[in-house]
Amino acid sequence: MQVRTDAIPADRATRWERLTALPLTFLSVMFLVVYAVPILRPDLPDSWRAACEATTVLIWLLFWVDFVTRLILAGERRRFLRDHLFDLAVLVLPMLRPLRALRLVTVVLNLSRRAESWARGRLAVYVGATTMLLVLVSALAVLDAERSATDSNITSFDDAMWWATVTITTVGYGDHFPVTATGRFVALGLMIGGIGLIGFVTGSLATWIVDRVSEKGRAAAATVDDIAALRAEIAALRRQLDPQASTTGDDPDRRDHADQPAG
Amino acid sequence: MQVRTDAIPADRATRWERLTALPLTFLSVMFLVVYAVPILRPDLPDSWRAACEATTVLIWLLFWVDFVTRLILAGERRRFLRDHLFDLAVLVLPMLRPLRALRLVTVVLNLSRRAESWARGRLAVYVGATTMLLVLVSALAVLDAERSATDSNITSFDDAMWWATVTITTVGYGDHFPVTATGRFVALGLMIGGIGLIGFVTGSLATWIVDRVSEKGRAAAATVDDIAALRAEIAALRRQLDPQASTTGDDPDRRDHADQPAG
Amino acid sequence: MQVRTDAIPADRATRWERLTALPLTFLSVMFLVVYAVPILRPDLPDSWRAACEATTVLIWLLFWVDFVTRLILAGERRRFLRDHLFDLAVLVLPMLRPLRALRLVTVVLNLSRRAESWARGRLAVYVGATTMLLVLVSALAVLDAERSATDSNITSFDDAMWWATVTITTVGYGDHFPVTATGRFVALGLMIGGIGLIGFVTGSLATWIVDRVSEKGRAAAATVDDIAALRAEIAALRRQLDPQASTTGDDPDRRDHADQPAG
Amino acid sequence: MQVRTDAIPADRATRWERLTALPLTFLSVMFLVVYAVPILRPDLPDSWRAACEATTVLIWLLFWVDFVTRLILAGERRRFLRDHLFDLAVLVLPMLRPLRALRLVTVVLNLSRRAESWARGRLAVYVGATTMLLVLVSALAVLDAERSATDSNITSFDDAMWWATVTITTVGYGDHFPVTATGRFVALGLMIGGIGLIGFVTGSLATWIVDRVSEKGRAAAATVDDIAALRAEIAALRRQLDPQASTTGDDPDRRDHADQPAG
Repeated sequence: MQVRTDAIPADRATRWERLTALPLTFLSVMFLVVYAVPILRPDLPDSWRAACEATTVLIWLLFWVDFVTRLILAGERRRFLRDHLFDLAVLVLPMLRPLRALRLVTVVLNLSRRAESWARGRLAVYVGATTMLLVLVSALAVLDAERSATDSNITSFDDAMWWATVTITTVGYGDHFPVTATGRFVALGLMIGGIGLIGFVTGSLATWIVDRVSEKGRAAAATVDDIAALRAEIAALRRQLDPQASTTGDDPDRRDHADQPAG
Repeated sequence: MQVRTDAIPADRATRWERLTALPLTFLSVMFLVVYAVPILRPDLPDSWRAACEATTVLIWLLFWVDFVTRLILAGERRRFLRDHLFDLAVLVLPMLRPLRALRLVTVVLNLSRRAESWARGRLAVYVGATTMLLVLVSALAVLDAERSATDSNITSFDDAMWWATVTITTVGYGDHFPVTATGRFVALGLMIGGIGLIGFVTGSLATWIVDRVSEKGRAAAATVDDIAALRAEIAALRRQLDPQASTTGDDPDRRDHADQPAG
Repeated sequence: MQVRTDAIPADRATRWERLTALPLTFLSVMFLVVYAVPILRPDLPDSWRAACEATTVLIWLLFWVDFVTRLILAGERRRFLRDHLFDLAVLVLPMLRPLRALRLVTVVLNLSRRAESWARGRLAVYVGATTMLLVLVSALAVLDAERSATDSNITSFDDAMWWATVTITTVGYGDHFPVTATGRFVALGLMIGGIGLIGFVTGSLATWIVDRVSEKGRAAAATVDDIAALRAEIAALRRQLDPQASTTGDDPDRRDHADQPAG
Repeated sequence: MQVRTDAIPADRATRWERLTALPLTFLSVMFLVVYAVPILRPDLPDSWRAACEATTVLIWLLFWVDFVTRLILAGERRRFLRDHLFDLAVLVLPMLRPLRALRLVTVVLNLSRRAESWARGRLAVYVGATTMLLVLVSALAVLDAERSATDSNITSFDDAMWWATVTITTVGYGDHFPVTATGRFVALGLMIGGIGLIGFVTGSLATWIVDRVSEKGRAAAATVDDIAALRAEIAALRRQLDPQASTTGDDPDRRDHADQPAG
């Protein structure tokens, strides 16, 4: 919290993000652990269960502290809120317990937002990581929601992971499916993630094919650099004609010079 | 209805659309309400049910009035009919009751057609809104068609919404599916919507990836502006050589001037 | 069959195709009718059934006559065979009865191959028509294969059409599915068609989005015409400097002229 | 193994790959045969079964020899390992028996990596071949894993092939689905393959549509060749102005020449 107050706001926001990046990632992993353990071990003693619950609430409060601090440090607060609607929703909605785990996805999304370079390979790694996290968190959430429901068919973690995989790839065998309202909302998130995933893979492959095919078949398009080289050449030509006009030949509107006879 | 008759037809059509935009949207929402209420509350007293039915017919007639007025005001009526085939189909087909509710989709489509700017963000909002409306209307229509059918497995609004979501994402678990002809036609519309939705998401992501990747990796292509700057430069050069030809140097075919010696 | 023999081979092939286009389309529709009737009416008297079978064989023979004639008239026969592998497969394979009906798809594909203009709208119409034909033919073929099978769940044309729709959109509820080998091969064709359909819709939407977004946001790229205008301008400039070199200035390698003093 | 040791490392690696290409392909086919036979014929005598197992181990060892040789011959070993992570995983993981068969996919991938030209047609052939191989191998692997499982519904090769087809196209009827952990991992690979397949088909169609549509509607973009022609023209112009500067006019920064009067 030792943020110098004499710096300009934008600087302090950046410094805060840099300072909290590692602790927040650690807190997110912790959150996943204390979220997962009571779901995976239904026979957990009540004392441990209470400890997990308490840790969840504590981490959630720390996420709130981080969000409010970033809001205060932000230059344009209205814009900050608009840009972080998903973060806010995840913080406000956790009354609905399973949705809280989606905070992890936010971490990955934040990581990818901070990345300077967006090469295709790096993008693929982030999409892959987000997909795996989404499958894991959804499996946990759906298992939590469905286990004790009547007529439920998702009662083990194996089945939950299998169901999440079958859903995100939009295969949908129908051997396992949620029957509770909460489970169905989790499924909705997974399906939207699945469509996004397919869209990303398709889009990446499409651009890759375009590059592969166009590299060979077509001549390279003229670039701004080619045009700049041409302009330099013409400028040199003008200087040759009128040595007095030895400044940059970039301004074609200087008619006074142009009106002088060339020789 | 106070459209001035001394204006030119095109103007009157535009003014009519501007005048009716808000009332039509209100009527569409009303239509959805009176369509949904008898489906969601099967125990509705007969008097209320009759009132809903009457309102449906009234709004439908007002839609007809709007369509015929726009057809009369349109400059080229054949072209207007060709461009509004979907509107016409929705107005003529409502003998089939569930299809009537698709009128709402037309409203959203009209809104998006009127939009001046087609930025990607705005496009995404319209596609999202259309998708949600399509899911809602399809769930209502399929529930109306399936509820009383033999061997039906879609008997509550929850199940209908879940079925519509599972169908539009092309997951298709098979825990709920329509068994009546009407329900299957509703499903057909949803599936086509789903393929369009996946196509839109994929297409958007593909163009986004192309932009992201090409912004960094490739030099910007030369634009018409770059070429125009070059031409201005060469024109200035020609004026330098031949001060008398001080008019625009745009016409390279004026050989009489070019034939004069430079110095 | 009154093809003039004094024409050059390529001409005769084109004339043959023009002459047979309409009869072949009629024969294809006939083929679909005589294929569909015995499937849709299982209680058809044996005499009618035999008549349908005879017509099927007759049309099939006429397709063979057309194929062999086109092969003989073709300039490069090896290339013709390579370009018409699908036509040939459909003619040879009809030992397997349901596949014969795929001949109709060939007709649509041929129509689209003959089309001069490939505007996006026209492409969409062909894809839509092919999709509907594929669904119809597959429904007939699967019904024919499955109806009498043990444990079959596709026993009416309604169910077959519904199954084909659910399959081509890759939704796959699993309420109806083929259990025979023939039915499963039909399903394979439908699924491949479905992936192609999704690919086409996605591709069309992607290019449409790219056009929409790029039209507004980016400056137009420089075209070859812009460059040609620039070259004409420079050519005029060279004529201004050296009036004797009044021929085209296209050859920058003519050093003998360039070595003469400008004034 | 007669690799000359006096050649430069890169050459020896290339020669090794050329020498082993055919034997490795043969070994891969052998591997598929000895992998498939005991699965397809569960009543195989134990002696034959042992022979198949021994051949599998032998071929696996030969694959290891090839991999280690290529690693030794590679110029940059770290980079070689990074580029061949999938090859290495397939060699190390075969403790899990069904995954071993994926070695075949590597062969096809290697073939396509060696291909000099990446025309769209050739790419489609490789994707088609990989898809078919993936379906075949997955069907064998899932049958091997599921046949003896309790409550299994994939007990014949026909059903396994049908299940693999329904899964890779993401239709997922749910009439057959794996229930064992191994079977579900095979399914995961198939689903990922399916998403990749859809992505490839969509991407190819999208680029094809773009080419089709843009060929007609838009003027060709200016290429680097057009710009080069322009520069040559301007260079000739400069030589005309200053015959002494008869060297290449490529350097616009040579101000000393440009300062001389033109006439």
